[in-house]
Amino acid sequence: MNKALLQAGERIDQLFSTDVKIIQNKEVFSYSIDSVLLSRFPKLPPKGLIVDLCSGNGAVGLFASTQTKAKITLIEIQGRLADMARRSIALNQLEGQVEMVHDDLKHLLDYVPRSQVDLILCNPPYFKIEQQPNLKASEHYVLARHEITTNLEEICAVSRHALKSNGRLAMVHRPDRFLEIIDTMKAYNLAPKRIQFIHPKANKDANMLLIEAIKDGSLEGLKILPPLVVHQADGNYTAEIEEIYFGKS
Amino acid sequence: MNKALLQAGERIDQLFSTDVKIIQNKEVFSYSIDSVLLSRFPKLPPKGLIVDLCSGNGAVGLFASTQTKAKITLIEIQGRLADMARRSIALNQLEGQVEMVHDDLKHLLDYVPRSQVDLILCNPPYFKIEQQPNLKASEHYVLARHEITTNLEEICAVSRHALKSNGRLAMVHRPDRFLEIIDTMKAYNLAPKRIQFIHPKANKDANMLLIEAIKDGSLEGLKILPPLVVHQADGNYTAEIEEIYFGKS
Repeated sequence: MNKALLQAGERIDQLFSTDVKIIQNKEVFSYSIDSVLLSRFPKLPPKGLIVDLCSGNGAVGLFASTQTKAKITLIEIQGRLADMARRSIALNQLEGQVEMVHDDLKHLLDYVPRSQVDLILCNPPYFKIEQQPNLKASEHYVLARHEITTNLEEICAVSRHALKSNGRLAMVHRPDRFLEIIDTMKAYNLAPKRIQFIHPKANKDANMLLIEAIKDGSLEGLKILPPLVVHQADGNYTAEIEEIYFGKS
Repeated sequence: MNKALLQAGERIDQLFSTDVKIIQNKEVFSYSIDSVLLSRFPKLPPKGLIVDLCSGNGAVGLFASTQTKAKITLIEIQGRLADMARRSIALNQLEGQVEMVHDDLKHLLDYVPRSQVDLILCNPPYFKIEQQPNLKASEHYVLARHEITTNLEEICAVSRHALKSNGRLAMVHRPDRFLEIIDTMKAYNLAPKRIQFIHPKANKDANMLLIEAIKDGSLEGLKILPPLVVHQADGNYTAEIEEIYFGKS
């Protein structure tokens, strides 16, 4: 079975808390914890339109699909990843709800109406171009991790145009770029409202952040949510992360 | 004893982890956890010059005095609080290290040399003027909590002038003003470098933040430190807070 579905090196991973199956390929691209956390971070609109920018193999949008009746548009510039996402949509029989667009996110408004999107999810490339890529990584990983095909500025610009007033942009990113993220969001009328920091252990600096901004929102009333800690001191997942991966036990 | 030392309504509180004694008056002003946490947040210069802006009854600077040989200048606009601080300095026999200035912090450079301060500590008024003060609180509390005699902008402006290049400003404040704090610091060439959020319980939003900025620093490389949680689920202090108040057991 699945002979036509899977290409060489691919396998199907399942996020048990959602029952969603995702086609992965460790040598090309696989989702990781940041995608799982991002899909659970914003309150999802019960209906309407959600966009997943830089969707990769579709993990964020597919995880989100189980929590909402909203239509979800994924957009990804890498054909190989877009193709994996298309097959994952079919595998989960989500063709009626989730659509894959293979294009540069700059062209998002060719696919969704201006000022009509309720929520944008984005797990963008984290590193600036000047940060040296790992030359052993596949080209797909390099493009997914480094701001080669897009960057923060472009993501915020297209989000402002696509979101309705009071629509939200939810992003996962790295704390060392926090000041720049906030400035760029504000420059595009996206007001940061909820921030959650992710710490690998309780006594370690944050290595990820989740941030939600509201288009045309006021800059008052920012909330810093309870921290999310991934591992216990002994290296096992914390109860919170166990629940996110495997559901309530 | 202490008849001359204490005025009506005053008492002496001791922070056991430091042995420092502080003259307090619940009806006028007493320090609380924010002062204790601020005094422990930045790495203190072993010598040189530290300034405590908005020093109140002197708690922050007095707690810090036990960890450094640096000279410490406290500046406070309220005469009643400055007088309490002066008597606490004498009580702890710290006249050789700690000096109390009763003046508006705008005039700080009348007391310390320009561009010579290694570290500024500041527990400022948290609330904007438009936020309604609690009319039952004493005038001293109102001035300590609301931006009536000073504000963020003035604190950052005077800090920029007083700090040496690469000197640091460490402040405790509220997360709902986080975006404004960052913007104001940056406008005065103070680059945020270390931030720690304080949560009343592990599953609650942050209600305080500690932030350290470096004068003329680069805007790269911000660190979000491990969160500090004050209370356990049962309401008792966490081990970290116990240690801060009472020392290692």
